[in-house]
Amino acid sequence: MKAENWKAEILCVGTELLLGDIVNTNARELSAALRGMGIGVYWQSVVGDNPDRLRQAARIAGERANLIITTGGLGPTYDDLTKDIVCEVFGAKLVLHEEEAEKIRAFFAQKNREMPENNLRQAMLPEGCTVFSNGNGTAPGFAFTAGETTVIQLPGPPREMRLMLETGVIPYLRGATDEILLSRDIRIFGLGESSVEAKLHDYMESLTNPTLAPYAGTAEVRLRATAKAPDEAAAERMLEPVVAKVRAELGDLVYAVDEDKLESVCLRLLKEKGLTFAAAESCTGGLIAKRFTDQSGASSAFMGGVVCYTNYVKHHVLGVPQETLDEFGAVSAQTAKAMAEGVRRVCGSDLAVSVTGCAGPNSDERGTPVGTGFVGFASPEGTVVKPIQMGKDREWARVYAASFAFDLIRRYLTGCL
Amino acid sequence: MKAENWKAEILCVGTELLLGDIVNTNARELSAALRGMGIGVYWQSVVGDNPDRLRQAARIAGERANLIITTGGLGPTYDDLTKDIVCEVFGAKLVLHEEEAEKIRAFFAQKNREMPENNLRQAMLPEGCTVFSNGNGTAPGFAFTAGETTVIQLPGPPREMRLMLETGVIPYLRGATDEILLSRDIRIFGLGESSVEAKLHDYMESLTNPTLAPYAGTAEVRLRATAKAPDEAAAERMLEPVVAKVRAELGDLVYAVDEDKLESVCLRLLKEKGLTFAAAESCTGGLIAKRFTDQSGASSAFMGGVVCYTNYVKHHVLGVPQETLDEFGAVSAQTAKAMAEGVRRVCGSDLAVSVTGCAGPNSDERGTPVGTGFVGFASPEGTVVKPIQMGKDREWARVYAASFAFDLIRRYLTGCL
Repeated sequence: MKAENWKAEILCVGTELLLGDIVNTNARELSAALRGMGIGVYWQSVVGDNPDRLRQAARIAGERANLIITTGGLGPTYDDLTKDIVCEVFGAKLVLHEEEAEKIRAFFAQKNREMPENNLRQAMLPEGCTVFSNGNGTAPGFAFTAGETTVIQLPGPPREMRLMLETGVIPYLRGATDEILLSRDIRIFGLGESSVEAKLHDYMESLTNPTLAPYAGTAEVRLRATAKAPDEAAAERMLEPVVAKVRAELGDLVYAVDEDKLESVCLRLLKEKGLTFAAAESCTGGLIAKRFTDQSGASSAFMGGVVCYTNYVKHHVLGVPQETLDEFGAVSAQTAKAMAEGVRRVCGSDLAVSVTGCAGPNSDERGTPVGTGFVGFASPEGTVVKPIQMGKDREWARVYAASFAFDLIRRYLTGCL
Repeated sequence: MKAENWKAEILCVGTELLLGDIVNTNARELSAALRGMGIGVYWQSVVGDNPDRLRQAARIAGERANLIITTGGLGPTYDDLTKDIVCEVFGAKLVLHEEEAEKIRAFFAQKNREMPENNLRQAMLPEGCTVFSNGNGTAPGFAFTAGETTVIQLPGPPREMRLMLETGVIPYLRGATDEILLSRDIRIFGLGESSVEAKLHDYMESLTNPTLAPYAGTAEVRLRATAKAPDEAAAERMLEPVVAKVRAELGDLVYAVDEDKLESVCLRLLKEKGLTFAAAESCTGGLIAKRFTDQSGASSAFMGGVVCYTNYVKHHVLGVPQETLDEFGAVSAQTAKAMAEGVRRVCGSDLAVSVTGCAGPNSDERGTPVGTGFVGFASPEGTVVKPIQMGKDREWARVYAASFAFDLIRRYLTGCL
């Protein structure tokens, strides 16, 4: 099957979605993964754990889609109806898969818990199906075909679904699809989306395969280059010149290709060079420290930080001279410089960043306009300070300022500060 | 119509949902709001900006639901098809609403921008509909009835949808529903969900109207008391004794009723008493500072904080004695005490909290088990330290430890430390 001939529907089963207790991240993640393979998702549906409505929804999906992916309702309890009903609708016969039964028994044995007999219901799977084992739980997922239709059933808990998607579903669908789509995620910091588009507009327009298109990031720009090819190696060969062209146009504004975040790029580079940093944060209020320490392994590169929300803390903890605060104000290049140098000294780190700014909603007592900010960077070679325009949205301003600080670390460590 | 006789479907229109670019928060928020009124949502559906599939989805909704809420596709461009197609399916005739046309003209006049003529398409609304004005944009929403079916159409951008839901849709549906449901959100910190259920199980079982049920929070427990009554005043009278009973059983474990978060309770109490605090954070890595400063107005109550991810910073910035670190380790009650006292001193705050712990994934160099932690609280009256068990999930551990610190502030300020 060619990728473009698939018509996919995602059918999520779970009363908690209909009650509004949780947001449907499974639908988003499945849609994004299918898009990455060039498979179009035309419908997303949600029904609760109700046999009649589930049966009806499965029938509607069977009439309009040829690839149906369900999530939820694969657990061991008798509320978990998705498998029985969907298999009934598509005429698939459930049989005990001895191998899966063994895994479930082993799971309980390993935890020294007695296995409730109904857990074996999870090993009842469609005859001849492809089984996806569950690395984060007990319920296996699976895929089967019924006539022209392929049905894939996955567990509902996002951790279980996500791992199975990566390890089972994507390889399965790649195998069932003649052409593959492969993407490169090009990450850009320091230029707005319209400026990126202006620079690359003619080039983007000229491409058909691979394609190159911008998509939304928070306080950054992302470009996705996508190639359609018979296999991965061919797609990779096609993508190389596109990435090279973007790098040639945007230079060091490209901070990563296929890497997750500015802070993860920083963590990798700091570890590689055996360096540490510290952060002095005013308006970002701990966001730099929080984002960096969200990462497991952060302690090898992060000494610590000071959240100096008041002039008192800037002066007493970081040693920003009182005269600097009085003369230039808390939101000034001079204060940003003293903050970066101060936090580097008191935390004993190799490098340091600082952020001071007015994130709003109100301007400070000196009347500094909302959105004004300064980011400092201190290293053994000296200190630089950059003015930034953070805009008027408080949340966006904080994310942008923190990202700007990470970008200065990245630039220093890659020699393009 | 009685609330229980509604059968609602939420139909979201937007290719960006099918591409997996964004998660469907509109569906969640609408579902939660309807649930709050006792209206059952039985289906959520998503289709793209495609006339045929949208028409088919609207027909399916019309066959199974008697309340259909659409989001998306109300904008001024010719891609925005939702209104035309849904109104066609339900036989509603579109006419120019002069009042809405005037608002759109005024919107552009105020911004000194010329109005593209097609913006007036947004003022073409079903004859006799109820109009919901858009406080965050130009496209109005509206409700109309077709036979037994009520159709509500709302814009897609979440900011616009959310405000219109609160100001327009909820009052409209309350007016169209004989009985109302009113809920109280009771927030509990410091006791697990199963323990809360054990304490209140018999009481919860005994209730029919109002009802009382637990629902999920992150590192906290929430109880929802819900009354069905002819009007709001009657519902409020019915809810009072339920809230009182929960307070009697759980005492000061109840940190708020209908208030948003532990940190917002702290901000309100600190402002009321004119007090400030500071935070010394090890394993939470800035999360306390970040959560508190996410709140606009935080600067009046937060002096600052120190993220002491290393012993060097604990000793040099906070003055934790080297002997304490050597003898008891970084993860100890003694270190937590010295951190809280140190950060209070260096930041010049009235109160201070500290967190030190091992959030994992690996234990520290002294072999402290993952999940061990201590939270300190310092005030003019002295310092207390509480041991905490943070579990093995890094993310959960950090949220729980930060919440525990906020809870100590809340307890001190309400006299129940």
